[in-house]
Amino acid sequence: MIVYLNGDFVEKEKALISVDDRAFLFADGVYEVIRCYDGRPFRLDEHLRRLEQSVRAVRIEFSDFGTIGDVAKRLIAENRLTSGDALIYVEITRGSAPRVHTFPPRGTKPNVYVAGMEFQPKRNQLENGISVILVPDIRWSRCDIKSVGLLPNVLMAQRALDVGADDAIFIRDGVAVEGTASNFFGVFGGVVTTHPKSNYTLAGITRDVVLELCHKIGIATQEAPILESQLPDAEELFATSTTMEITPVVKVNGIVVGNGTPGPITRQIQKAFWELVRSS
Amino acid sequence: MIVYLNGDFVEKEKALISVDDRAFLFADGVYEVIRCYDGRPFRLDEHLRRLEQSVRAVRIEFSDFGTIGDVAKRLIAENRLTSGDALIYVEITRGSAPRVHTFPPRGTKPNVYVAGMEFQPKRNQLENGISVILVPDIRWSRCDIKSVGLLPNVLMAQRALDVGADDAIFIRDGVAVEGTASNFFGVFGGVVTTHPKSNYTLAGITRDVVLELCHKIGIATQEAPILESQLPDAEELFATSTTMEITPVVKVNGIVVGNGTPGPITRQIQKAFWELVRSS
Repeated sequence: MIVYLNGDFVEKEKALISVDDRAFLFADGVYEVIRCYDGRPFRLDEHLRRLEQSVRAVRIEFSDFGTIGDVAKRLIAENRLTSGDALIYVEITRGSAPRVHTFPPRGTKPNVYVAGMEFQPKRNQLENGISVILVPDIRWSRCDIKSVGLLPNVLMAQRALDVGADDAIFIRDGVAVEGTASNFFGVFGGVVTTHPKSNYTLAGITRDVVLELCHKIGIATQEAPILESQLPDAEELFATSTTMEITPVVKVNGIVVGNGTPGPITRQIQKAFWELVRSS
Repeated sequence: MIVYLNGDFVEKEKALISVDDRAFLFADGVYEVIRCYDGRPFRLDEHLRRLEQSVRAVRIEFSDFGTIGDVAKRLIAENRLTSGDALIYVEITRGSAPRVHTFPPRGTKPNVYVAGMEFQPKRNQLENGISVILVPDIRWSRCDIKSVGLLPNVLMAQRALDVGADDAIFIRDGVAVEGTASNFFGVFGGVVTTHPKSNYTLAGITRDVVLELCHKIGIATQEAPILESQLPDAEELFATSTTMEITPVVKVNGIVVGNGTPGPITRQIQKAFWELVRSS
């Protein structure tokens, strides 16, 4: 697999970073994951815009976002990802410098890593839904920044797997804010509901697409906190992300949602999403 | 500088890690910083014990802590750190594997990095004290785990520097919990006070040494939250860490503490600390 690292296209095995890299030492970096359908990056501009927001939020000195798009396209070609499903991974760190908490000297170059790889969608989960557990939101309070500081997400995703579930939903102050790598939606009285954009959630690209599609189809939506106590009343639940697309959630802490199968509104949104993807 | 990476002693420039390393991708690693005085690692066993606690807390499959001590000693020799001040840095990550949030396949080897380097104590700060600002504690709620997920610490340390202060103290729910890389102490009515061990603070090695020394000298101590609202009443404030030792805090948000110079109890503890260091 050919990847991009700081200007070079190299075999992944040769893409090596310094032990002084600040993501390695401090989680001092941000990232994006972009989905490609038959070689076409989906919502590339939105992903690059969000990457720019993350870079600005953590004050990394990088501005060459145009290059990232070009690199992504070259990686798709080099790695023969022009048909089927693929992912582009982008990470920008504050560069390599002797370990001090404060920013490294001005002029320290960010490390820029981009990879393009095949992706296997979890078709079974998209079709039949997933089970989730509820876990305390132990993350920091800037989840709107897509930083590589993902250890809490790792620990909770693994905890879900350990108890036979597929994923975990973070509960903060009684609110189901989002999944370990997804936004979280519920249908209540026919209204598609998801957490408002805030410092406790990532502004998901797929989340926005879902809200757009609902408006287009004529499904009512609201951006409001979903209380943990409301979950038993949900008619449908689903999670969204670049990799999960619109994945039905059919079980929460072992208790079935609705009749235990993906609901009609979720299905309608999935269908509209895949039509959009095919046409874009 | 010779460093250790996964069994090899190499020049630091040749110590390179994969872009699939899980600390680089997920902050999925833990670390320690150990102080050496004239080649003698201070409280090495305590640091290795805490490293083991971190490793266990995040469930990294590593148990060879004895090796770390031997590696540290060899790095001290190889890098001629046998006199003066030095630091040992240890980082253990969950290894290198294709990017998936959940743990990599069983048998994936952790990446183990150890460096030994010269260190310049900030003598001016030890002598005259530092100024700090108070910042919201945006960190996760497992600050007891010494993970490399330090982006909030980086951002707040830099914010302090940007406004001409030396460091920042995190305020969570009205409590001054700790610094960006230190424990925080206050003297109130002659009683040396610091936050109890909890999930919001690191169990500092120097913190413990300070409490021990106070008991020995006959200074009263208590482990209790220091409220932000109490700070104006503090007779003395100081911060402790492996690199900062016992550093007086003489200004908070621009307001002087006591008479603006390091207090007598802080001085007494500094003196006892340096005596301990010399004799151990």
